[in-house]
Formats: sequence, C-alpha cells, structure tokens
Amino acid sequence: MLIHVINGPNLNLLGQREPDIYGSETLVTIERQCQEIATQAGHEVTFRQSNHEGQIVDWVQESIGRVDAIVINAGAYTHTSVAIHDALRAYDGRIVELHISNPHARESFRHNSYVSSTAHAVVVGLGVSGYALVMAQLCSESAN
Amino acid sequence: MLIHVINGPNLNLLGQREPDIYGSETLVTIERQCQEIATQAGHEVTFRQSNHEGQIVDWVQESIGRVDAIVINAGAYTHTSVAIHDALRAYDGRIVELHISNPHARESFRHNSYVSSTAHAVVVGLGVSGYALVMAQLCSESAN
Amino acid sequence: MLIHVINGPNLNLLGQREPDIYGSETLVTIERQCQEIATQAGHEVTFRQSNHEGQIVDWVQESIGRVDAIVINAGAYTHTSVAIHDALRAYDGRIVELHISNPHARESFRHNSYVSSTAHAVVVGLGVSGYALVMAQLCSESAN
Amino acid sequence: MLIHVINGPNLNLLGQREPDIYGSETLVTIERQCQEIATQAGHEVTFRQSNHEGQIVDWVQESIGRVDAIVINAGAYTHTSVAIHDALRAYDGRIVELHISNPHARESFRHNSYVSSTAHAVVVGLGVSGYALVMAQLCSESAN
Amino acid sequence: MLIHVINGPNLNLLGQREPDIYGSETLVTIERQCQEIATQAGHEVTFRQSNHEGQIVDWVQESIGRVDAIVINAGAYTHTSVAIHDALRAYDGRIVELHISNPHARESFRHNSYVSSTAHAVVVGLGVSGYALVMAQLCSESAN
Amino acid sequence: MLIHVINGPNLNLLGQREPDIYGSETLVTIERQCQEIATQAGHEVTFRQSNHEGQIVDWVQESIGRVDAIVINAGAYTHTSVAIHDALRAYDGRIVELHISNPHARESFRHNSYVSSTAHAVVVGLGVSGYALVMAQLCSESAN
Amino acid sequence: MLIHVINGPNLNLLGQREPDIYGSETLVTIERQCQEIATQAGHEVTFRQSNHEGQIVDWVQESIGRVDAIVINAGAYTHTSVAIHDALRAYDGRIVELHISNPHARESFRHNSYVSSTAHAVVVGLGVSGYALVMAQLCSESAN
Amino acid sequence: MLIHVINGPNLNLLGQREPDIYGSETLVTIERQCQEIATQAGHEVTFRQSNHEGQIVDWVQESIGRVDAIVINAGAYTHTSVAIHDALRAYDGRIVELHISNPHARESFRHNSYVSSTAHAVVVGLGVSGYALVMAQLCSESAN
Amino acid sequence: MLIHVINGPNLNLLGQREPDIYGSETLVTIERQCQEIATQAGHEVTFRQSNHEGQIVDWVQESIGRVDAIVINAGAYTHTSVAIHDALRAYDGRIVELHISNPHARESFRHNSYVSSTAHAVVVGLGVSGYALVMAQLCSESAN
Amino acid sequence: MLIHVINGPNLNLLGQREPDIYGSETLVTIERQCQEIATQAGHEVTFRQSNHEGQIVDWVQESIGRVDAIVINAGAYTHTSVAIHDALRAYDGRIVELHISNPHARESFRHNSYVSSTAHAVVVGLGVSGYALVMAQLCSESAN
Amino acid sequence: MLIHVINGPNLNLLGQREPDIYGSETLVTIERQCQEIATQAGHEVTFRQSNHEGQIVDWVQESIGRVDAIVINAGAYTHTSVAIHDALRAYDGRIVELHISNPHARESFRHNSYVSSTAHAVVVGLGVSGYALVMAQLCSESAN
Amino acid sequence: MLIHVINGPNLNLLGQREPDIYGSETLVTIERQCQEIATQAGHEVTFRQSNHEGQIVDWVQESIGRVDAIVINAGAYTHTSVAIHDALRAYDGRIVELHISNPHARESFRHNSYVSSTAHAVVVGLGVSGYALVMAQLCSESAN
Repeated sequence: MLIHVINGPNLNLLGQREPDIYGSETLVTIERQCQEIATQAGHEVTFRQSNHEGQIVDWVQESIGRVDAIVINAGAYTHTSVAIHDALRAYDGRIVELHISNPHARESFRHNSYVSSTAHAVVVGLGVSGYALVMAQLCSESAN
Repeated sequence: MLIHVINGPNLNLLGQREPDIYGSETLVTIERQCQEIATQAGHEVTFRQSNHEGQIVDWVQESIGRVDAIVINAGAYTHTSVAIHDALRAYDGRIVELHISNPHARESFRHNSYVSSTAHAVVVGLGVSGYALVMAQLCSESAN
Repeated sequence: MLIHVINGPNLNLLGQREPDIYGSETLVTIERQCQEIATQAGHEVTFRQSNHEGQIVDWVQESIGRVDAIVINAGAYTHTSVAIHDALRAYDGRIVELHISNPHARESFRHNSYVSSTAHAVVVGLGVSGYALVMAQLCSESAN
Repeated sequence: MLIHVINGPNLNLLGQREPDIYGSETLVTIERQCQEIATQAGHEVTFRQSNHEGQIVDWVQESIGRVDAIVINAGAYTHTSVAIHDALRAYDGRIVELHISNPHARESFRHNSYVSSTAHAVVVGLGVSGYALVMAQLCSESAN
Repeated sequence: MLIHVINGPNLNLLGQREPDIYGSETLVTIERQCQEIATQAGHEVTFRQSNHEGQIVDWVQESIGRVDAIVINAGAYTHTSVAIHDALRAYDGRIVELHISNPHARESFRHNSYVSSTAHAVVVGLGVSGYALVMAQLCSESAN
Repeated sequence: MLIHVINGPNLNLLGQREPDIYGSETLVTIERQCQEIATQAGHEVTFRQSNHEGQIVDWVQESIGRVDAIVINAGAYTHTSVAIHDALRAYDGRIVELHISNPHARESFRHNSYVSSTAHAVVVGLGVSGYALVMAQLCSESAN
Repeated sequence: MLIHVINGPNLNLLGQREPDIYGSETLVTIERQCQEIATQAGHEVTFRQSNHEGQIVDWVQESIGRVDAIVINAGAYTHTSVAIHDALRAYDGRIVELHISNPHARESFRHNSYVSSTAHAVVVGLGVSGYALVMAQLCSESAN
Repeated sequence: MLIHVINGPNLNLLGQREPDIYGSETLVTIERQCQEIATQAGHEVTFRQSNHEGQIVDWVQESIGRVDAIVINAGAYTHTSVAIHDALRAYDGRIVELHISNPHARESFRHNSYVSSTAHAVVVGLGVSGYALVMAQLCSESAN
Repeated sequence: MLIHVINGPNLNLLGQREPDIYGSETLVTIERQCQEIATQAGHEVTFRQSNHEGQIVDWVQESIGRVDAIVINAGAYTHTSVAIHDALRAYDGRIVELHISNPHARESFRHNSYVSSTAHAVVVGLGVSGYALVMAQLCSESAN
Repeated sequence: MLIHVINGPNLNLLGQREPDIYGSETLVTIERQCQEIATQAGHEVTFRQSNHEGQIVDWVQESIGRVDAIVINAGAYTHTSVAIHDALRAYDGRIVELHISNPHARESFRHNSYVSSTAHAVVVGLGVSGYALVMAQLCSESAN
Repeated sequence: MLIHVINGPNLNLLGQREPDIYGSETLVTIERQCQEIATQAGHEVTFRQSNHEGQIVDWVQESIGRVDAIVINAGAYTHTSVAIHDALRAYDGRIVELHISNPHARESFRHNSYVSSTAHAVVVGLGVSGYALVMAQLCSESAN
Repeated sequence: MLIHVINGPNLNLLGQREPDIYGSETLVTIERQCQEIATQAGHEVTFRQSNHEGQIVDWVQESIGRVDAIVINAGAYTHTSVAIHDALRAYDGRIVELHISNPHARESFRHNSYVSSTAHAVVVGLGVSGYALVMAQLCSESAN
C-alpha cells in the first residue's frame, strides 16, 4: 500500500512556531514516525508540504490510480480551496482529513471545510500524534 | 485511568439499522472492544447510551472529579444541546468527540457542533472502528 | 395494522387550555375516537403523550419493525429536535405529521419542522378533528 | 354549500407526468371523485385549473360572498405569489391548502408558502387522495 | 402566595464550579434564603432543579392554577426550548426570568431567550443574590 | 398630457373590502375623480386595473412613446415582479408609485418594492385621496 | 390647526448643495411656501431644522397634545434613530414622512426607515415641491 | 427536428429599446435568422414571445412529447418563476437557456435563475447573435 | 457611595404616556423614591434624563473616577449607540442596565443591546418599581 | 486575431475522469479542434492549462495589449479568485467564460462566479463542444 | 491651507483611559503636534472634539467652501452615523479618516464604517502618531 | 532594521493600467523611493511582487526571525487568503497593511480583509504615496 501525506501552507513552521501549543516536533520528525509505522506494516509513504494551492492540486492528481490513500492536512486551504476539493473528488482512493488543533474551537472562517465532504474520515485536535494515529489506522484497515 | 464513553440518541440502533452502512456490529460489541483495549492497558471504561438529553447532562456531571476522560458521541444532540455543552465545559478531564459517519458530508443542520468547541479532539467518519482508535489513543496518552 | 399515535409536550393540556380555541375535548376523548375508528376497521391503536424529547425518541424506536404507521404531533419538539428526526428516519413504516393549529400562521420559530421532511403526509389546522381524519385515512389506505 | 377547488400551474399534467410517482389518475378523475363526495352530501363543487397567476386571483375574488369554502393547490404559485395571498385574505370563507407531494421534503425554495398563513388547514403528501379527504372533511364540518 | 422556583441544567453544580465567579454558595443555600424571605412575608416556596427539559415542562404545567408565580432560571434550555416556552405561555401566573451571570456578555448562541417573551420581568447578572432580590420583589408586589 | 393610471391585483375589490379601512369609495369613483382633475387641467387619463402581471407589463409597454406619465399602484406585484420593473425601466416618461396604505408598516415581504427604484416619486398611506393628490401634482408640474 | 414641520440633518444645506439636483430653493423659501399655504387655509405652521437627533426628539415631544400634525423629513436619522421612532409613537397627532429624493433608489442602508411604521402617510421623490403638496393635503383633510 | 424558441417579458421591445446596447435588430429579424438556419438544416422552428408567465407555462407544456428542443429566454421570469421551472422539469426534450446580456454583471436580483437548473446549456452575453449560435449548435447536435 | 441614575430619550414622558401601561408615576416620583432609599442607606444619588445621545456620553464620562455605580436606562439608545457603549467601557464603576418594560417581548430591533455587554446586571420588565429594586440592591451590596 | 484559451485546475484530467459524463475527449483533442477552427479562419490560438491560480493571473496579464480575446474556463478558481477577476478587468480584449457542465445545477458554492462580471459572454453546459462553439463565434465576430 | 481635525465621542478621554494601550499623550498634546506641523508648513489647523453626533455634523457643514481638508476620527459614530456620512458627502474638500487602533481587529460591530466610503484615505492602527503622519501627508500634498 | 515590502497580484501592472487613477509611477519607481527613504535612515528594504498566493506565504515565512517589519499590499489575496493570514500570524515583527485605493469604497467582496486583523496599522487610499508614508513612519518608529 502506498500512502500520500500532503501538508498545506505554514505546516513547515511546525516545531518552530508556538512550541508550547504545537510541541517541539517538526514535520521532519512526524515524517520519520509515519515512515516507521508504514515500513513496519510493509507499506510505503510519501510525505510532502507546500504553501502553494496549485502544488497541492498537482500532488492529489498525481495520486490518482497510483496511491492507495491520501492523508491531507490542507491547512488554511481547507477553508478556501474549491480546487483541492475538486481534485480530491477526482481521486479514487481513501481520504483522511487531519488537523493538529481543533478548527471548530477557533475563528468562524475556519468552521467550513471544503475537504470534509470528500473525506472518508476526519481527525482533528489530537496534536501531532494524530499523524501516527491515522497511519496506524490505515495500516490496520489494509491488514483486514 | 477511568474513561467514560457516552452515546447519545439513536446509537442503540447500531447493527440493526442500515447494516450495509454501519456494519453488523452493535453497541454491545463496541463496548466489549473498548473494555478489552482499556483492560489491556490497565484502565477502566464505563459505557452508556441514552436518548435523553438530561440523562447525558447527568452523566457528564457525574464524571466531574471522578473520570479522567470522556469519549462522547452525542448523536443528534451534538447539533442542538447547549445544556450538554455547558456540562462539558464544567467537566475538568479530557474530552474526545466522536461520530461514526462524517456529519460535514450530510445536511446543513448537522454542520454545527456544540460539542466541538469543548473537545480536545474530534474523530469522525472512521465508522465503528473510531471507538477503538480513540480508546487506543487515550491509553497511549496516559502511558506517556 | 398497528398504529402508534405519539403526542409531544403540552398536548396533555388540551381541553383545559384556551377552550375557545382548542375546544373542550381532551386527549382522552381524542384517544377514544381514534380507538373507535381503528377498531371498526379492524386495526389497533396505541396512544401516548410525553413532555420528554427522549421519551418520544424511545417510542419511535420501539415502533421499528413492530408498528405499521406513526401519527406524530411532536408539539414544540417539531421545531427543535434533530433526535426525533433521526429516530423517524430509522423507522420503516408510514409517518403522518399532525398539528391542531396551523404553525405557519404563528411565530417564525414555528415555521421550520424537523418532522416534515421524514413524513409521508402532513395535516395541520383541522383542530382536534385532524386526528380522526388521519386515522380514517390510514385505515382506508390499508383497506386498498 | 358551494366549494371551489382551484388548481395552479402544471397540475393539468397529472396522470401524464411521472405516473410512477403521481399515479395514473388525471385531474378529470379527481374532479369526478370530488363531485361524487359533494353530491352525496348535498353540496356543490366547481373545479378549475390554470397556469395563470392572475386567473387564480380572479377565481378567488369571484368566490367572495358566493362560495363557502376554497380548496387550493396553488402549485408553484404557492411559493411566489403575494397576489394570491392578498386575494385569499380578502376572501371570507373557509380555506384549505392542499399539495399532492410534501414540499417540505423538496428544494428549499418550496419551503415557504404564501398560502399557508391564510389557510385554516393544510394537507400535504397524501397523494391525489388528499382531495377526497379534504372534500369529506369539509362536508362533515358543514354537517355539524 | 405560592412561588415556584425552577432551575434548569447544570445549576446543581453551583458552589462547586468556578467558585471565584459564582461564589461558594450552593443551590441549597439559595433555596434556604428564598424560603426565609417567603416565610417572613407569609408565603410559600417550592424550589427545584433538573437537567431534563421534559421535567421542567412538567413542573411548569403542574403550576397552572395552583402557583401564583414562577421564578425560572432555565439555564441552557433558555436558548433552545420551545417546549418550555409553550408551557410558560399556558401558565396563568406571574413569571420572572433569572440568570446568575449576564448572557448578553457571553457567546452569541446565548443571546436569544425563548423565556423572555413569556416573562413579566427579567433579572440577570446580579449573581446568586438575584434570587433573593426577585423573592423580595414578588413578596412586596403581593403586599400591595 | 396623457396620463396612464395602472392598478394591480385586488384593487378592483376597493369599496367592497374592509370599508372601515379603505372607505366606501370604489375604483370607479377614484377613476371619475382623476378624470375630473385631469380634464379641468386640460389633460387626458386612461385608468385600468388587472390581476394579471403580464397584462400590466403590456400596458406599461403600450405607454412607451405615447403616454406622458404613469401612475402605478402595482399591488402585490410591487413586491415580486421583476417583469414590471423591466417594463417601467424601458418606459421613457414620468413614473409615480402609489399605495393606499403604508406597506412599510405591514409584513416584511411587503418592504421590498421593485417599482420604487424606477419611480420618480412614491406616495403611500394617504388612502384613496392619494390618487387625487398625485393627479393634481402631475397637472401642476405640466403647467410649469 | 397647528402643523409642525421638522427637518433633520443636512437639510439646512438645501439650495447650496448640488443645485442641479435639488434646485436653487432653500429651506427658507420652502418654509415661506408652507406658511403661505397654511395661512391661506387658516392654519399655523412652525418650521424647524436640526442636525441633532436629541433636538428632533425634543421637538416631537413638545408637539404632544399641542400640535395637530407633524411633517417630518428626518434625513439620515430616518434610517438609524429608534429614539425618534419612539417619540413619534408617543405623539398623538397625524404624522407625514417626507423625503425630497427617493431613498429606495439609493444605497441599501437608506432602505430601512424607522419613521415609516409610525407615519400615516409617506411622500418621497417629489423634490422640494413635496412640502407644498403635503401642506395642501393636510389643509384639505382638516377642511373635511 | 422541431425547435421551440420561447421569449419572455419585454423581449418584444428589442430593436426599439436602447439600440446602442441591443442593436437595431428586432425579434422579427432574429426569428427570420433562426428559421433560415433551421430550414437549411432541415429542421422546423416555432418562435414566440409573451409578457405573461402563464402563457409561457402553457407553451412549455404544449412542447411535451411534440418538440425536440426548447430555447428559452425567459427574461425577468428567469429570476422569479417557479411555475416555469416546474413546466420545464416536466418537459422531456433538450433545453437551452439564453440571455442577450450577462445577468451576472447586473443587479443581484438577477443572479438567481430558476431556469438554469433545468437547462442542459446556458448561453449569455453574446447579444442577439446568441440565438443563431444556439440554433446552429442544436442543428449540429441533431446531425451527429 | 455616589450613584448616578441616567435616563435616555422619551423617559421624561413617563406618567403622561399610556398610564395604563406605565402607571401614573412620573420620573420626578421615581427620582424621589431613589433619593429616599439612598439617603436612608447613607448614599447619594444624582438623577438625570436627556434625549441627546451625546449628553448621555458626557454624563457617563463625568462619572469616571467620581461615581461608584451607574444605573442606566438608555431607552432607544440602548439599541443603537456604540458611543454610549464605549463610554460605559471606559467607566470603572458598577453598571446596572434597567428597562421598565421587557424589550425582548417587543420589536426585533429592540433585541440587541449595546449596554448589556458592559453591564454587571440587567433588570427589565419590573415596571417603574425596577428603579427602587436596583437602588436597594446597590445599597445592600455596598453594605457588605 | 490571436485568441488565448486558458484552462484552470483539474481540467487536465479531462477524458480520464468520468468518461461517461465528460466523454473520452482530452484537452489535447480540444486544443486541436480549436486550432483547426482558428487556422481555417486565419487566426491563431494559444491553449494552456494550470492548477495554479497565480499562473492563470500571469497568463491573463501577458495577454494585455497582445491578445484579441481570452476564452477562460477557470474551473474551481471561478468561484474563489478575486485575483483572476482583477487581472481580467485589467485586460482590454474580449472575454468569454466557459464551463463544460452547468455550475448552476451543482453545489451552491459553485453558483457565484468572479469571472462572469468581467466577461462579455458566458457559455456553460454544452460539454466539450462548447470550446468549438465559442471559437467559431469569435472567428465570425472578427469576420464582421 | 486650512485643515479641520474633528474628533468624535470618548476621544477626550485619551491619555487618561488605558494608558498602556493609548499611551499617556492627551488630545491637547496631539493638537499641539498638529499645530506645529501645520504652522511649519505655512498652514492652519482647527482641532475639535465632541461627544455629540449633531455637533460633528455641524462642524463638517461649516467646513464646506471654507476648509481645504478634514481629518476625522469619528470614534463610535464611524459605525452608526449616516448623518455624518451625508455631511461628509456634501463637503467638497479632501477627507482623511483616522483611527488610533485598528477597528478591523475588534468587535464585528466596528467593522462597518460610514466614513470610509466618503474618504480619500484611511489611516488606522498607527496609534496617536497617526495624527502627525496624516498632517505631514496633507502638507506635503499641498506642497506639490 | 530590515523591512520587507510584499506586493500581491496585479500590482506589477502599476503605471500601465488606468494611469489617470493610479498615476504613471510603476512599482520600480516606488521601490526606488522606498529604498531611498530607508537608506537615508540607515535601514534596508527588500521589495517584491508576485501573483502567486503560495509565493507570498513563502516570503512571509522567510521573514520570521530575520525581518523587522513587513509592509504588505496583498492585492486581491487580501480578501480571500487565510493562508497569508496564518503566515502573518506566525510572523513576529511589525506588520503594516497598505492599499493604493480605498477598498471600502469598492465592491462588497473587497470589504473583508484577512490581513487587517493581523496588522498593527492599515493605510489605504493615499495612492502610491502611501508606500513612502509607511516607510517614513517605520523609520521614525525605529528612531525612537
């Protein structure tokens, strides 16, 4: 199984920004954890981040017919991007939406998600450990 | 660690209602799975369901100062109950909101959640396996 | 055929409250009329009232697979209860929504009905005689 | 007693359009049924249909002081016509609003009714048998 | 004069929850103060609390024709319960709405009150001393 | 000068409907008054009423290039007709909007007027004497 | 008969501001015309202008029990002043609202009027000649 | 192939109204062009215009089972007529919505179209040449 | 303790306006009652009324650092004045909002209060006796 | 004449995605058809696609002063991009908006178009043949 | 050049209110700075403050034809005063809107400004130094 | 001090687009002016423009911990980009928002700014001279 983890704008700042909230783990550490979980279960992970909406659309499109599951934390584009929504709808694999904090407890412009209606599952507010949780879940699903 | 799993209205119909969507597992099976995961990790679980808003408020109140974490699938009351919201705000432990399906992909009156803004984490759309996932996560958190 | 007539909050005040509007008939009289119509047509009626939303959800659930039709006057819960809406959606028989007065001619917060979108028929504004009318209609439907 | 049954736009297509939903009965059959019920009870019925909003206003006006009850299925004009609303308000007899299907379970632009707030009763979702039901009800009212 | 003091969801937590805000007085203490004021003025008080919307509707109904005034702090149900609104409208005595804090200075979903339009007076933000104030006022009214 | 007075739906009921509000004057009397005022000033008046939106559009169109001023009381179509709005915009003469009562003091669906933004003047709430007032004003304008 | 003409903010700029739109007539001229019409009919007029909301409230209050009719062009306060609305409601004489241009054809924040729902008549868009028109109308009313 | 071109209110003013915007071509000229294109392709065209909503509903109904395609420029009724929407939904042939100018660049009350959701194609803003374009397209479709 | 009672627009009409609703007591009587209560408790009261928003802002500002509590019945400015809101926020003493009737049971434009979010307490609907009630409460608070 | 055809996000998936809806033609085929039509008419076409909003803004800017017409199918950016709107407004040539399906018959977040108000024409719902249609139209316009 | 600096309600509290936010500078100091900058550039400044909306309207009116530029910090009236908006529109000189803090980062009722649409420039959030900045800018503009 | 001036989409068209509004100065000229002001004050400026939202997010991120102040004219992204909002919130230096024209006097979709709530100051409507003004202000701030 090939899993594509796609991270949106400003997630490259993890670890460096407000460590009291987001912890000291960086995206690099998270990527390593995801790789370990996947490898152990005999799966493969690609892990990427971009601040560019178009780049994220490109990555979702490249996954069509080639990647078994997308784990997407689209950051701010979650709330504004119909383009990513459309790409995800064209994608034929499993989709899990993920957020480190809980957007429902923040500003109202973060309450709408264009990703949620295309996702099979949504996991928010578990901090960076949400990534490992979702990886483990996808691996165990594929084991069944 | 003592974990309180609280299920809201109509969740007692699980397994019996639309098995092609929700699977054939009933709340009893789910409770057993949660108990196993918790026992294995040396924790305790109470598992309840009610169709009565007031009963759920009662249960949340009883958890104050006595229960380490609440896992709550408030069903339809998620969208209408300020009373449960207030009880959860008075509660001093960890709160995880859970839904079997993804409410964001359903009718607009399911898009607002009075639970989300009080929760530390929200897990939706993973089907009944979301319960096991959340139990595992809470156990691993307490292990750290 | 078994028909379940479910009455929501404050309908137990019928006959006693504003008799110039609602007439002097009480729920007891209405129940007796419904029983007569049903018996004559060889059918059975259960007739209940509660001020508790959860109780109404319980009654709707108990009807699944056992009752052929629900006649529901959900009173004020018509406008606020997603829980009753969900229970009615899980119910597999015929549903008729009924109101004694015409809510569309009253305050705007009575203009939305969470029951209507699950009902096969809606009858409002016929006063207490609406109950007899709906019973007769259900009996004649079953006769065809 | 003289009863005026007024049908709005596109109801002349009944029987011909989507017979699996609306059945094979035409407006002509429905008119005959209404006439029979009324005649048997010693009453008189006029039965009309028009696609023109102004024509329906004319018919409502003609009923003032001459007709005892109007049964109106205003079709699409239900949702858009303040003119029919005003005519009905000027009318001094009994008004019953009728719809074959349940508009509350359809598009949101069918959720508002300019007729409802002028009606004494509203009957929806009983299919074409709603006409007979309402006729019987009006006849029985006049019998008291 | 018989006065019914009805308290809604989560008010049983008074004294125990956020004592810096709500003070250390519990509902028991408040009840005792109300009893003293009433007794001194030759009146009687019943004092109750419930987390159940239906229970509060029941209590309001029981007051009809038997209780001279209702003092109601409906807690969260203030903002969501049309059922309590309807029961209060059916009630024929004096109604005073009471809140310990000032809901207008809190979240927007607390700005609407279904109780206010049925109340003769509304007293908010005086802390727990609001109960004594309202009791004194009702007693002095009855003295005139 | 040729003046076209156009009256919309239900205005033919004047004098007959609620005479305590609208007085006992009928459209015929009003027409006669308008004719007198115009004749005395050396002008000509055509005076019409229809319940049909399309008919009113026709009359407005016929006025283009031939009539100096339109006085329009579009009744209920005031609030719903973009078609009349468009016809009035195509019309090149003077437009006065007129209402017998004051729609701003009535239901909210009467607060919008598609006529007002095309009119040079709006006169409301002067009762039937508004017609004479507007006629006099138009005559005196043409005298300057 | 004593008539009070009250003009709101910026109306003192008449004649000086955009003479191509508003004409070269000033408030002084308009006042003189009003006086003439009233005197001729044996009535008295007081004519005032203020940019201060409170001043206008004062003037309306002073009219209670002393003035037969108020003609009010509240200018911008038309759209924002509940205080003037309340004063006008306390006033017991006849009220005519007047605007020189047609606010419905301007910005949306001019579409609401707190004056209209208290007025017996509203005259807009007749330019400065609206004042004379309304004076004549009030005089002729008093003549009947 | 039989094509029905239906034009709504005020389109009969084409050529005469604002020729700098709409050009000097009249509906007659447009009809002739449509006829030529259709004849050359061996098809037949009926071409009509009405200011009456009901008339347009009638024409759409007459097309059921008899006409292969409807080209409809419903003018102002585009934005207000649920009746035309319903008739078009009952129609079983191809539907093309057409507007001479671009309503999206005009007032907000022209942004909603009850026709668009029933149409297979929508062509706007091409001026009167849009008619020829759509005819050519329909002819070429039928040629395939 | 120095208490400032500030009354907004139209409250000077008390006693004179609708005595069946507001009673025959005037602001002068109310002021005397407040003075008595305060004097007896050893406190001082200033009591003022103005129809001018700016005057009320001035009075609130003068209270800063000099007055212990403001009792404010801002009348219509309650619903429209951000300026009074800002002045009250700058004020450092205790604030009680007061209304004679219950604005929540009146027009929707009276449902918002710019005063409430700055107030420690809000008392409405107790009639003119609300003033005495609030005075007594403030005196008793200062006694603790 | 030089025509610039600009395609937005996910249009590169044409032919590969849902061929039963969109047909088996790819963007490459469409480009070839456009080239043929243009060449035959003696014109030139550039044809591009990008998933990047900024890239589309760049392309529109490059067209200023150099390209005679832009045909733009902005895909999902149609509904969210003010940046493309601004670039199109700065562009001085002819603009045609194009969509393969009809967005008005899809989700509500596709009902707003930031492109439409800058376009001279909008063509939607003609499938991929819309491209050829628009090319032909632009060529015929330039021929006049 | 004559510049009129107009300050709205509560700005007279500057220096005294929340000095940690607004600094210890008072309006007097700011006025002196403005005078210095203007004098040095050979210009004249008048500098005023009022809590009265009507006073501010008066001052704007007095500036017509006599003052070259208005710098206006309308305080709370920014968000509620159509009267000031109208006066500013009648004013023929240059208008700069100024706020010490950034209202867009505060409550939603401060997000609308009736001043902004009449202003040539808006400067917010620069603290009290914004006054000096705007004075310098106006002086340098007049120097060109 | 290092200052980063970031310009969003379409600002590269300055000088070339609508010179009567925006003047003939280009971004290059503006950059030179900013450089001069900064150099004279002993500071450094980087000056950039992009049509790509992601590029702007990148530039803001690069500024973290390295740049003392960001001056941002985000163009159209001001109104739509939550991603830029998030990046600016993560940025730890001073932020000034700048617009050449006044967006509040333009279309309503330009009234919301995702930048404003993160900015310390906002300067709009001063034309291109706003850049110099803001540079001077930042330099003088750093001098204190």
